Amino acid sequence: MSIKNNAPTKELGFGKYIATEGRLMRANGTFNIERKGTSVTKNLYFDLIVMSPWRFFLTIFVTYLAINIFFATIYTLVGAQLSSVEGQQVMGIWIESFFFSTQTLTTVGYGRVAPVGILTNSIASFESFIGLLGFALVSGLLYGRFSRPRATVNFSENLLVSPFQNGKALMFRIVNTSKSELINPEVQVMFAFNDIDDTGAIVRAFRSLPLQLSQVMFFVYSWTIVHPLDENSPLQDWSEKDMEERKPEFMVLVRATEEANQQIVYARCSYAHEDIVFNARFKPNIGKNEDGIPVVQVDLLNEYELLG
Amino acid sequence: MSIKNNAPTKELGFGKYIATEGRLMRANGTFNIERKGTSVTKNLYFDLIVMSPWRFFLTIFVTYLAINIFFATIYTLVGAQLSSVEGQQVMGIWIESFFFSTQTLTTVGYGRVAPVGILTNSIASFESFIGLLGFALVSGLLYGRFSRPRATVNFSENLLVSPFQNGKALMFRIVNTSKSELINPEVQVMFAFNDIDDTGAIVRAFRSLPLQLSQVMFFVYSWTIVHPLDENSPLQDWSEKDMEERKPEFMVLVRATEEANQQIVYARCSYAHEDIVFNARFKPNIGKNEDGIPVVQVDLLNEYELLG
Amino acid sequence: MSIKNNAPTKELGFGKYIATEGRLMRANGTFNIERKGTSVTKNLYFDLIVMSPWRFFLTIFVTYLAINIFFATIYTLVGAQLSSVEGQQVMGIWIESFFFSTQTLTTVGYGRVAPVGILTNSIASFESFIGLLGFALVSGLLYGRFSRPRATVNFSENLLVSPFQNGKALMFRIVNTSKSELINPEVQVMFAFNDIDDTGAIVRAFRSLPLQLSQVMFFVYSWTIVHPLDENSPLQDWSEKDMEERKPEFMVLVRATEEANQQIVYARCSYAHEDIVFNARFKPNIGKNEDGIPVVQVDLLNEYELLG
Amino acid sequence: MSIKNNAPTKELGFGKYIATEGRLMRANGTFNIERKGTSVTKNLYFDLIVMSPWRFFLTIFVTYLAINIFFATIYTLVGAQLSSVEGQQVMGIWIESFFFSTQTLTTVGYGRVAPVGILTNSIASFESFIGLLGFALVSGLLYGRFSRPRATVNFSENLLVSPFQNGKALMFRIVNTSKSELINPEVQVMFAFNDIDDTGAIVRAFRSLPLQLSQVMFFVYSWTIVHPLDENSPLQDWSEKDMEERKPEFMVLVRATEEANQQIVYARCSYAHEDIVFNARFKPNIGKNEDGIPVVQVDLLNEYELLG
Repeated sequence: MSIKNNAPTKELGFGKYIATEGRLMRANGTFNIERKGTSVTKNLYFDLIVMSPWRFFLTIFVTYLAINIFFATIYTLVGAQLSSVEGQQVMGIWIESFFFSTQTLTTVGYGRVAPVGILTNSIASFESFIGLLGFALVSGLLYGRFSRPRATVNFSENLLVSPFQNGKALMFRIVNTSKSELINPEVQVMFAFNDIDDTGAIVRAFRSLPLQLSQVMFFVYSWTIVHPLDENSPLQDWSEKDMEERKPEFMVLVRATEEANQQIVYARCSYAHEDIVFNARFKPNIGKNEDGIPVVQVDLLNEYELLG
Repeated sequence: MSIKNNAPTKELGFGKYIATEGRLMRANGTFNIERKGTSVTKNLYFDLIVMSPWRFFLTIFVTYLAINIFFATIYTLVGAQLSSVEGQQVMGIWIESFFFSTQTLTTVGYGRVAPVGILTNSIASFESFIGLLGFALVSGLLYGRFSRPRATVNFSENLLVSPFQNGKALMFRIVNTSKSELINPEVQVMFAFNDIDDTGAIVRAFRSLPLQLSQVMFFVYSWTIVHPLDENSPLQDWSEKDMEERKPEFMVLVRATEEANQQIVYARCSYAHEDIVFNARFKPNIGKNEDGIPVVQVDLLNEYELLG
Repeated sequence: MSIKNNAPTKELGFGKYIATEGRLMRANGTFNIERKGTSVTKNLYFDLIVMSPWRFFLTIFVTYLAINIFFATIYTLVGAQLSSVEGQQVMGIWIESFFFSTQTLTTVGYGRVAPVGILTNSIASFESFIGLLGFALVSGLLYGRFSRPRATVNFSENLLVSPFQNGKALMFRIVNTSKSELINPEVQVMFAFNDIDDTGAIVRAFRSLPLQLSQVMFFVYSWTIVHPLDENSPLQDWSEKDMEERKPEFMVLVRATEEANQQIVYARCSYAHEDIVFNARFKPNIGKNEDGIPVVQVDLLNEYELLG
Repeated sequence: MSIKNNAPTKELGFGKYIATEGRLMRANGTFNIERKGTSVTKNLYFDLIVMSPWRFFLTIFVTYLAINIFFATIYTLVGAQLSSVEGQQVMGIWIESFFFSTQTLTTVGYGRVAPVGILTNSIASFESFIGLLGFALVSGLLYGRFSRPRATVNFSENLLVSPFQNGKALMFRIVNTSKSELINPEVQVMFAFNDIDDTGAIVRAFRSLPLQLSQVMFFVYSWTIVHPLDENSPLQDWSEKDMEERKPEFMVLVRATEEANQQIVYARCSYAHEDIVFNARFKPNIGKNEDGIPVVQVDLLNEYELLG
């Protein structure tokens, strides 16, 4: 975000494809865009890494069931030469084959039901190989999910217009929700709005917003980021009506070094005009416990009070 | 690629070993070079990490079969003291030993066939140890394959000479095929061509090509990289004949921060003179879906139209 | 820590929430702060990665027991259709179920006790699946614990006021306890103390302390960091009484490249006024072995002698 | 290595503990130093990661045997309630227990021999838990060994004094032995030698050696690093006798971005005076194969010819 204050649109990487309606970035910081014509498998690892834990578990479990159903059917088709499985109906054989398959795939192999002939043995050998490979794969995915660096930054839901020094300022607040410290965090805010160009057409303009303080050494408490609405602000003369009509969007990028994995991490967030609260002030979210140690109340991050 | 515009060849690291025929870089960005006299094992991990998924699977599976054939032969040679395996021909014993081996290596261990004496037991103990180690190794390889940072950048197959402002420009287009965003991408283009030195000999010369824009903040849509053919371009006065005879090669290096693993990744690509299309223009590859959200058509990356 | 010598408090990221009593940083370099209102699960991975090995082992083992107790109870409740388990009392069935459960969860599956009916088989299939997933998870955690980059820097327990050139200096000593080299270490010291502001109130002030040498190329021996108490020091005129009453705190940040994983690592430490020893000097902690090779005595790091 | 040409010794991090005899760095780039008084366990991971593959395999295997001997003894001591093991001598019971232990630890669990009573079952449950944990640990170690970033740089064994332009130059040669490219390699050379200080004592002095070229873009072929022995060289006026008596040591640091893992890697090397060859020249180590593609002969890296 080394954009100068009047840098042209292009340098942001949005090109000319910019709507004057709709957000560029969703509130959670993901881009409001769809990609088509790209293969699913290319994104499979990424999808499996970022999906919710429960969806991940379900995906793995359904795959586990599907593989066992497949192999149970194969065993049944080839005659299921399995010890202790004799003289049964097809359905009974399939069920015994299914459980035998789960015992093979997970390599638990009790052996009450065990393969006997060459064909059944061969399939079982292959299935246990697949099982180990599959669970090796799941191990990798699980580790990939754990160890993915992520900035555990929470953003306040609202952007306040608060009194500041002798004037006003735009303010939002961030907090680190993790015990893993974030070192040297740096914040940048990009501002998009509808403007009128030389030909009188409505175009989307971009500005970088100067901040009172854009980097700190440590990020142990919460941090209120302040854009003073002074002579350096492109928003200085905006009325509340402007704020609505010109559809401003504030895109925030936080960059920090995460301590547990000591890697550089990014967090993004976007505020639209409906997230702005005028004439309000954040309530303190830091107290002390009985031992006099400061306590950061992460859940009070967005608490504010409206002013007269 | 901090090469000045007239930097000597040496700083590129190609030294004097440069042919005036043949490419330095293949179209896919790998270097056109062979290394001899280096041990295979040193590159084993790298090879296993970069090979195609199917080749990887096959390599693992063939290794699995080979280990089982080896152990089956050993068991047969030492007399195969295995429960339920008695009074059989050698081939029958070998087959039972083979399946027992697979059950041991994968640790499925049904137990219908189980080791009895000290010798067979010792070998089986060792084999199950090898099995666990082997699959630990495969787990590591699989995770290494997944988590390898890679810039999921697609390059247009062609390099166009397109109208640009009042003149012309060389243009190619890149797109991110992954859902994982690429942050702060930076592009550099190195240009190699045949030149004549003071002695009249044909030598290979190198120039860095100035770009209209070499870095953007976000890379959410596709990005057309533009080298204007103006007074700053070493190509300004080249005819189409020059383009063919002087065997130009355009080596592209893209550097970005990949979001899923938050690491810096590189992508390379090379265009030779046969990839150049004169007097053409890229077709738009971005549309909107029914919800008004921009859609990037990754598969239309190389679509262009020839101009009058 | 790119703080200028008279940089205001804010840039440190501590904001206005600073006590004039109590430390900002504990001696071991962690921040003296508590976070509330944040979900436990968000920190689970971090907690499991940083806890002591024994606590980690115990956590895993207790979880293992709990899962087996859970499944043993389930098997008993559904009637425990297990081979070799017949005609027993409930307690006997539960105990057999418990061991069957451990054999299923770890996939050892001896098979002396094996599931028979559909219900028991289904639960066992699920349990072995959970077992593999669980141990895949533990594999990931163990690797995460190993591979966590960490600066293996030991700090001397005390901060000495030692003779230095024609005056005095504050000195502390650091050593690398690992065989993995630390490359290009850089040290910064931040100094906090009680000051009196314009209104006469006691406030916490911050200064960066200039060091005689703040970065070296290699860190193979021990390194004595020196802050000369000269005209550039905010501490120059302090009496020993000031040192106690103004509650100084010296926060140290070491940054280096760790060789085994070739990553940038940080180490922190904090000295309070009770850690200061006046008029003392560190004893040498480097000798030679019988082969003339230098020997660093890591355990002599804090050895000092009091002077006259 | 941002040392100025006349920077004092201290900034290197070697302090005053410098011998005027013996090398600071061994030829392979490790420091010639021993650390005492530090715990073994702190370095255990590092040791296991860097040891040779065969030593690693042996360490794991011996640990595997030791654990099984331990558990076999425990089973024997508690009476070994194992199916199929009855009426045997103590030694026979111990041997059966040993193999049962291996089947439990690796979770192969054939079940021919299976635990029966509560005590034996409890120990077996614990052992299979330990087994899975242990192999999870080995998985992590194996992955740590694979994925450790390493600059696969080979250095020529000798440092040549070769003709260069109108004078002479010190030269050594490096090559990348891996298929994984090294991007943007940078070389720095630090030079240590015996000097005489103001008091007439022999002291060890340090200089950084200016190089003809210290960084290149790509490192696809081999690279000859050149320090011209001109007016900028501290070695300009040295005789061959000086080279021996003043015990020069040349410490080389290479820094590059490794492509497979896209991480920054370091390689070090040291040349002592006995490695210097006067009046010699490296032979070409690059040819072409039948397809006209350049071939780098990694094994010819140190090939040189003595000149008249």
